[in-house]
Amino acid sequence: MEPERILLAHGSGGKLSYDLIRELFLPPLHNPILATLADAAIFSRQGMRLAITTDSYVVDPIFFPGGDIGKLAIYGTVNDLAMGGAKPLYLSIGFILEEGFPLEELRVVVNSIKEAAQQCGVDIIAGDTKVVPRGKGDKVFINTTGLGAVSEGVELSVDRICVGDKIIINGFIGEHGIAVMTQREGLEFDTPIKSDAAPLWGLVSQMLGASQGLHLLRDPTRGGVATVLNEVVGGNDFGIRLEEEALPIGEEVAVACEILGLDPLYVANEGKLIAFCQPDEVEPILKAMKRHPYGRETKVIGEVVAAPPGKVIMKTRVGGTRLLDMLTGEQLPRIC
Amino acid sequence: MEPERILLAHGSGGKLSYDLIRELFLPPLHNPILATLADAAIFSRQGMRLAITTDSYVVDPIFFPGGDIGKLAIYGTVNDLAMGGAKPLYLSIGFILEEGFPLEELRVVVNSIKEAAQQCGVDIIAGDTKVVPRGKGDKVFINTTGLGAVSEGVELSVDRICVGDKIIINGFIGEHGIAVMTQREGLEFDTPIKSDAAPLWGLVSQMLGASQGLHLLRDPTRGGVATVLNEVVGGNDFGIRLEEEALPIGEEVAVACEILGLDPLYVANEGKLIAFCQPDEVEPILKAMKRHPYGRETKVIGEVVAAPPGKVIMKTRVGGTRLLDMLTGEQLPRIC
Repeated sequence: MEPERILLAHGSGGKLSYDLIRELFLPPLHNPILATLADAAIFSRQGMRLAITTDSYVVDPIFFPGGDIGKLAIYGTVNDLAMGGAKPLYLSIGFILEEGFPLEELRVVVNSIKEAAQQCGVDIIAGDTKVVPRGKGDKVFINTTGLGAVSEGVELSVDRICVGDKIIINGFIGEHGIAVMTQREGLEFDTPIKSDAAPLWGLVSQMLGASQGLHLLRDPTRGGVATVLNEVVGGNDFGIRLEEEALPIGEEVAVACEILGLDPLYVANEGKLIAFCQPDEVEPILKAMKRHPYGRETKVIGEVVAAPPGKVIMKTRVGGTRLLDMLTGEQLPRIC
Repeated sequence: MEPERILLAHGSGGKLSYDLIRELFLPPLHNPILATLADAAIFSRQGMRLAITTDSYVVDPIFFPGGDIGKLAIYGTVNDLAMGGAKPLYLSIGFILEEGFPLEELRVVVNSIKEAAQQCGVDIIAGDTKVVPRGKGDKVFINTTGLGAVSEGVELSVDRICVGDKIIINGFIGEHGIAVMTQREGLEFDTPIKSDAAPLWGLVSQMLGASQGLHLLRDPTRGGVATVLNEVVGGNDFGIRLEEEALPIGEEVAVACEILGLDPLYVANEGKLIAFCQPDEVEPILKAMKRHPYGRETKVIGEVVAAPPGKVIMKTRVGGTRLLDMLTGEQLPRIC
């Protein structure tokens, strides 16, 4: 019998990733903090609440419209901290370099890292560099691990979600995935689609200041909006209903998705967040978001519903209903 | 002109690694904590002293006598925290898997991680998994980032080193590098050499409890004892003199090094530490070390000298003197 092997789809952020984590990693490594499977792990020490998150970046190509692997490695980890309501403080960085990688390109990546870290107000305080032989890696892989501080009173958790909660997104979806994909495939559009890569702590900080009614934040990276929403409802006694009409999808992204045969709901974002909030607190949160440069296009896109539980459904433009399942294949490998 | 490229030797932990870090990474990313280039970065927050360290593990082969990449990924990071005098608390873990990697091998690695983490008393609270296509990675790379707590009064730093300080090692050198190398090359010895991979916080904790005269701890991993000692003296106004006769080198390692053309002083260890301590505090520290299972073979191997500054010299068995430079080539690629 052919042994089971790792497939590209295990890294898609979709159903196979989810199963691998739930079945292979979580049982042996189980502890209550890891088990939350949140974007950031939160723990307390001597009365101080801290958050840790880790991500390896293997995006291909390493340079794409609107960013590069260095910028992504900083923003991505800062954003995971922000999703935990944590102010980013420090990052560590680990490079795995492929023999033959031009130092000039490494300098460009490191400069991006520098600029992004300054923009986010974080210091990189620990690092590591490994080199693997040609053909045993691919140019550069970067791991960043972030440490952040969570203020008292901030509680962002799936447990706080209630039926009736409104679901908000801070702008157009699918731009990062499409920017990387068109660059990789050598496709050209009249208006090149840029990655939305952006650091979100500033926006989150304003949202937290505006209302205590913020229940959960998630960033729809690998696997996109549909996958993240499925993670939220998974195993819970509530569902989610999205309004297709409300989804902010840019025209260029829609066209590119048509051409590439992709569904923008499953395409990665790197500057977007999805917020679940108490219905009577939507107004102050929306107001705070729209005042921020990364929140101008904020929209309410759906709400938490009682039935069907554990499912994400979408009311389509024509009035029908579509089930949005988890990503099952490998729609976009190495997108982050 | 041919562009400058990453060489395998940039990952050796030797001179090229050192230069890459000093010249390419450090200037743009500079901050006072990173600049210490210590095994663990120490910072304070609300009166609490914490330590962070990060390491990516790319060892080839992933299974070797005495351990595997999973065990290494836990011990290595726990040990870097211990070298900062930090009690290990939490780890994050990031996997980069190659398409086609057998799930059965991944399970074995994850089980090693579990056992090693339990042994070290650390919880893995954050994780990430990426997959790269066949031929763009090599089975599995693992990043672990560790967070530890440093007790008040613990100060381990190059700044504390004084001329006359004794240099101590907790046992035989070169075993990890030789175990990996013989496995990789398919060499067989009557008594197979096992990696010395071991978690060192328990030993360090006893040393810290025994004396305030401990000035610095370093673990001689990549690049071995000679490289780490060169890092310590680099740019400083003191030197180091080792006694060849005192160096604990096992017979099998000595033979294997002969055959492989390696110098055990440059071969990686994963369960060794080098301690610099005040001469009048050597006795209590030695006593504490020898009581610990990982310190039974502890030896004083040299001392800090005034001249020549910035150099590591070795008094050889026949009474001569040998300069131990930094590793300049790539003696042992992918050893950790």
